[in-house]
Amino acid sequence: MPPSPDRPGGDVAALGEFALIERLRRLVPAAGPGVRVGIGDDTAVLSVSGQLLATCDIQVEDVHFDRQVSAPADIGWRALAVNLSDIAAMGGTPRYALVSLALPPDTPIEMVEGIYRGLAEAAAASGTAVVGGNVSRTSGPLIIDVTALGEAQTVLRRDGAQPGDGVWVTGAVGKAAAGLFLLRHPQARAAGAGERLVAAYRRPTPRVAAGQALAASGVVTAVIDTSDGTASDLLRLVEASGVGVRLDLARLPLADGLIEVARTAGVDPAAWGLGGGEDYELLFTAGPAFSALAPALVQATGVPMTKIGEILPLAEGRWIAGPRSRDPLVAAGWDHFGHRG
Amino acid sequence: MPPSPDRPGGDVAALGEFALIERLRRLVPAAGPGVRVGIGDDTAVLSVSGQLLATCDIQVEDVHFDRQVSAPADIGWRALAVNLSDIAAMGGTPRYALVSLALPPDTPIEMVEGIYRGLAEAAAASGTAVVGGNVSRTSGPLIIDVTALGEAQTVLRRDGAQPGDGVWVTGAVGKAAAGLFLLRHPQARAAGAGERLVAAYRRPTPRVAAGQALAASGVVTAVIDTSDGTASDLLRLVEASGVGVRLDLARLPLADGLIEVARTAGVDPAAWGLGGGEDYELLFTAGPAFSALAPALVQATGVPMTKIGEILPLAEGRWIAGPRSRDPLVAAGWDHFGHRG
Repeated sequence: MPPSPDRPGGDVAALGEFALIERLRRLVPAAGPGVRVGIGDDTAVLSVSGQLLATCDIQVEDVHFDRQVSAPADIGWRALAVNLSDIAAMGGTPRYALVSLALPPDTPIEMVEGIYRGLAEAAAASGTAVVGGNVSRTSGPLIIDVTALGEAQTVLRRDGAQPGDGVWVTGAVGKAAAGLFLLRHPQARAAGAGERLVAAYRRPTPRVAAGQALAASGVVTAVIDTSDGTASDLLRLVEASGVGVRLDLARLPLADGLIEVARTAGVDPAAWGLGGGEDYELLFTAGPAFSALAPALVQATGVPMTKIGEILPLAEGRWIAGPRSRDPLVAAGWDHFGHRG
Repeated sequence: MPPSPDRPGGDVAALGEFALIERLRRLVPAAGPGVRVGIGDDTAVLSVSGQLLATCDIQVEDVHFDRQVSAPADIGWRALAVNLSDIAAMGGTPRYALVSLALPPDTPIEMVEGIYRGLAEAAAASGTAVVGGNVSRTSGPLIIDVTALGEAQTVLRRDGAQPGDGVWVTGAVGKAAAGLFLLRHPQARAAGAGERLVAAYRRPTPRVAAGQALAASGVVTAVIDTSDGTASDLLRLVEASGVGVRLDLARLPLADGLIEVARTAGVDPAAWGLGGGEDYELLFTAGPAFSALAPALVQATGVPMTKIGEILPLAEGRWIAGPRSRDPLVAAGWDHFGHRG
């Protein structure tokens, strides 16, 4: 006999698929401007103005998240936020999301509801309506796959960088790597900056307003979000653009408190700044006129923007200018099957 | 040392994520009208006219497919086709798809490429461009999650059925259940109709042209696709519409050869016709004027359409009229966590 859908506790197998979907539907913002038909028909029916942006990102337990360090709501927040970051990197406005879940049968209902609550918070914070959902059991790890849809009038691609452009980054880098270290080593955790690093890992904030401001500036030539690490994502941008680059290591905006945590961890802070992924900042290039515009954009968006290098002709190479050396720029990010580029 | 990306054989862990994605990208139709930016930037940039349709469907190995009975290309075909069927059920035109894969590290590269080849065939057959992709490793079963996007001027919902409408279905029912039985019991397999049943399971054809013709007819009031079974999906349609229904069991268009296979299997053919899912036909309701239009629509689309019942006022109930009895209409479909409605 299946338990009542309203009985607290239990796992998803005891509740059953349809009752679970009903409970999850109530937790997310499903209506919203532009939603003509939401969850419940064969497809959602949506309105879009301008160009449609579409992206998907699959998150697998023990690959992308770990329920020992992330609360269910943080897992849900991140699953949507990483997609919204991609929309931000195009200069777009998030509008809609579709969510697929694969759940082990013994997943506690509270955990799934927690994931959905976090997802709902990220959706509400960005004006995103959840318009589709799909649930299956799995004999493997919990998986959450989100497709996000947005719209944009002017699109920022990653392939437009030109020699002479500055290389810029929003916010601070290495913070998620430091935050994850603190979550895994609670004894190293202190108040203050430590809490902000932990929050940066748990609940990355997609740089939507900054992306839109960059698109409106008219002088930004290329943008990518930093999901795999500053070095790795910069390499992608310059490869797409067919240009060289010099990254000035001393200018990297390391997060507050990162140096202390890195020292505790026995890690070079620059390694986290260059190779620590999951910061979800915008890494972008802009013509020289951007330097004069930047203070007003920082003021308007509340997001710091730091110049960290310069785009070079391809023949001049791709390198990192350090205090004592000049090193080739290589992907220090990560590969889901374990190879580094 | 990772093998050369061009070396045949090997598994996905040996190849690495980025090389795998490069190989998969080459296999699918990534360009197409409306694709302004395809795979390779932070998001795809797409054009849409009319209303945007969006749906997702996650397919988990050993829940939704079994590599013992389905070739990799059939798994890929189905993963897209089940989504296109949802777009067909709204009367829409498929346009774009995004694909997320979770792969066990020992998945043979040939298998992933086979899945993508089948997906590409379903995409090419329907004019769908694959505009996004995402790959992760998993310690669990292989998972393929597809989001499909389409567009429509006139949308067919599932909640518009009215008393007096006829209940209709395209094509034939129970064929996928019979085909799956034959795949699992090769000794029962004969030539002829058996091959068509097997093909119906392996490569369901989304009823896109039929859906568009129904939308254009002006007299169709509600549509749903039959993914879980005729009874289960009809129940969803009448629940959404708030009406009663009489389903005439004798009128069910059982697939050719189904009765013989059911006899071999020791199953009541009606059980497959009512409860066998995965046929991906369109189940719809239409006003009395539809009977006169149907022959021309069948002619134009090449898809049979059969009247199988009538919508009743809610107070008259929801039931199946059989040869000797009158039974309540219950969901004889399935629930991914194992409960039946």
